[in-house]
Amino acid sequence: MNAEIVAVGTELLLGQIANTNGAYLAQKLAEIGVNVYYQTVVGDNPDRLESVLKTAEKRSDLILTIGGLGPTEDDLTKQIVAHHLGEPLVIDNDAKAKIDQYGAKLSNNLKQALKIQNAISLTNHNGFAVGDLYLNQHGTSYVLLPGPPSECLMMIDRELMPQLKKLGNQNRVFKSRVLRFAGIGESQLVTDIADLIDHQDNPTIAPYAKLAEVTLRVTASAADEAAADALIQKTVDKILARDGRYFYGYGDDNSLAKVVVNQLIDRQLSVTAAESLTAGEFQSTIGSVPGVSAVFPGGFVTYANEAKQRLLEIPAEVIASHGVVSEATAIWMAKQAKLKMKTDIAVSFTGVAGPDELEDQPAGTVWIGIAYRDEDPQAYLYHFTNGRQQIRARSVLTGLDLIRQRLATN
Amino acid sequence: MNAEIVAVGTELLLGQIANTNGAYLAQKLAEIGVNVYYQTVVGDNPDRLESVLKTAEKRSDLILTIGGLGPTEDDLTKQIVAHHLGEPLVIDNDAKAKIDQYGAKLSNNLKQALKIQNAISLTNHNGFAVGDLYLNQHGTSYVLLPGPPSECLMMIDRELMPQLKKLGNQNRVFKSRVLRFAGIGESQLVTDIADLIDHQDNPTIAPYAKLAEVTLRVTASAADEAAADALIQKTVDKILARDGRYFYGYGDDNSLAKVVVNQLIDRQLSVTAAESLTAGEFQSTIGSVPGVSAVFPGGFVTYANEAKQRLLEIPAEVIASHGVVSEATAIWMAKQAKLKMKTDIAVSFTGVAGPDELEDQPAGTVWIGIAYRDEDPQAYLYHFTNGRQQIRARSVLTGLDLIRQRLATN
Repeated sequence: MNAEIVAVGTELLLGQIANTNGAYLAQKLAEIGVNVYYQTVVGDNPDRLESVLKTAEKRSDLILTIGGLGPTEDDLTKQIVAHHLGEPLVIDNDAKAKIDQYGAKLSNNLKQALKIQNAISLTNHNGFAVGDLYLNQHGTSYVLLPGPPSECLMMIDRELMPQLKKLGNQNRVFKSRVLRFAGIGESQLVTDIADLIDHQDNPTIAPYAKLAEVTLRVTASAADEAAADALIQKTVDKILARDGRYFYGYGDDNSLAKVVVNQLIDRQLSVTAAESLTAGEFQSTIGSVPGVSAVFPGGFVTYANEAKQRLLEIPAEVIASHGVVSEATAIWMAKQAKLKMKTDIAVSFTGVAGPDELEDQPAGTVWIGIAYRDEDPQAYLYHFTNGRQQIRARSVLTGLDLIRQRLATN
Repeated sequence: MNAEIVAVGTELLLGQIANTNGAYLAQKLAEIGVNVYYQTVVGDNPDRLESVLKTAEKRSDLILTIGGLGPTEDDLTKQIVAHHLGEPLVIDNDAKAKIDQYGAKLSNNLKQALKIQNAISLTNHNGFAVGDLYLNQHGTSYVLLPGPPSECLMMIDRELMPQLKKLGNQNRVFKSRVLRFAGIGESQLVTDIADLIDHQDNPTIAPYAKLAEVTLRVTASAADEAAADALIQKTVDKILARDGRYFYGYGDDNSLAKVVVNQLIDRQLSVTAAESLTAGEFQSTIGSVPGVSAVFPGGFVTYANEAKQRLLEIPAEVIASHGVVSEATAIWMAKQAKLKMKTDIAVSFTGVAGPDELEDQPAGTVWIGIAYRDEDPQAYLYHFTNGRQQIRARSVLTGLDLIRQRLATN
């Protein structure tokens, strides 16, 4: 099945927002083996939208539109597709009941309960505008999705994908698993498994690099789930045999912070931090994980030297003789933070976020300390690049990875 | 001039990355009055790329491609456009000299020095692949840009836009100014200036909402810069007469954190924070602004009640009798943080990030305290929504806005 995504909205066309809905939908379609060969963005203009649909019909079996289902005059996607298909719009009673219940006072809202006759309704769990799946056995099928990301993504996951999986090749299942790595660059990982990637067929392997993280998506198709799982597992085993020490977890909706915090919760190990250049970003990052309060009592942001002395009681002469960006200061920060918060683990960050140098050391010079229970605290030196925000973010991820590595050794 | 953006790359098509280059280019073109009516994404496939170009030529005067200029076999954009135009590819000597100097050892690199005959070369300041501007007075003109964002954005800013401005309507300049607001929602702001938006012509007004922030872009065209500025100023005056108290600054590359930190630096007022639910995110946010060390010595992350007592010496009975999510606790946190760090200002955050309730209060219940010099500290109650990360992020922005408002009153 050849699919094409058409995103509708002047704010997309003018570049005020990026087409992240389209990227998400394309990913989900790829996972079930639906090929997307084209994506188009067009404004809220009836003639141009219709001309885009005509071009798309010549080359695609399935057209998925995003946007233009709302209550305003600009929202015309459903009207144009219905007209193009020669089908009337009819009221979807469930959507109307929801609008009557919550949205009666808003003008024009009833428009959002309209669906194309003969289409399957796609429920909107985060809004009023109902979506459509219009199947056309002898021509192009249509899917209509709402534009707001919270509505669109939920409708894709909970309504559209289950329908498409049912429709798809009934004798074939597609499954995929995402492997997440930290502490290794994309180019190194791809080099390590180059032969697997070069000869990929089923499963396929798709690498993707983010800030200080790399993921691999392994996708297999087979006659049933168990067979697909077995294919995936065989490839995963080969990958982990080579780079398993950098692997930290599975899943799209996962992160190094989640994995580390959940390991700490499982093992009942508490954590704190003393942050200089990162200014609270490490603590804020672990704070993003629900349940972290069980292992994280709080910690210190010690930006100025005086704060390091006052809050952590680091002797002034340590900083004076070794410098604030130094192994000794990083070790003292971790040691004192752990002592003061009475935790099992403390991490410390001291370095040069930039743009200016500090103590003659260039931006990106970072010492990260770790104190673990009764062991001697250690500190490690890094040289990060690419500006202030990247230097801080990579420091935080590296601090998380140091904890992960330490937990892996016992 | 009608323009169309064609982004080339299988990783875009599969949704592995979003088309942020396209969004940026569309914004820049809008600023100089070039209309973009279509954007298309197509994979690294010669036939499909050529068919997209044919469709685009029928409806656009200028086609701008992004991607496919690199050294690998997949990179074919230049070859296909050249073939389509009936022009040969020739060596760009400057680009070749750069490759000879730095990249001689890499195979295939010379391919990146090719340009379309009769095109104006666009220098690549962050890479090897040269860009093209091919002007066609009697047909469609072409621009070819590289895919990596660091190369693409720099080439747009430093090479393409100056060329297009020269070419554009020589008697017309386009200017735009972005106004930034906090503490007011998009719908309220748009309602307040509905008559200005409805009757917009020159200047135009484009609203855009982000998390707890709204921006308005005011764009004017005129015979010269001074005339465009005067038109913009007249509209800006009208907008600020209505909602000036929510206005905090100008510019695309600006933020509430930048404005507040720079005000603090200008007025030599120091700041600290005591953070519970935000877990360091406020401090990390001000830490992102270069130069903040002049006014920010550090602060506290007091996630657990015990940390509030130990680090801030808040009496246990305050929390026991009022609750941790309370006006009294927020006030004590701000007061004690200010005292301990000896700053002019302290902000405190205590609330329910969720997903679970706390002290029978729902997720989103947040008290933000502010202590300013010798004044009595105050705390304010908010009810935020949309999940843990949004609740924390809106808390941080609201804390910044409380400081901004306090500074505005004297």
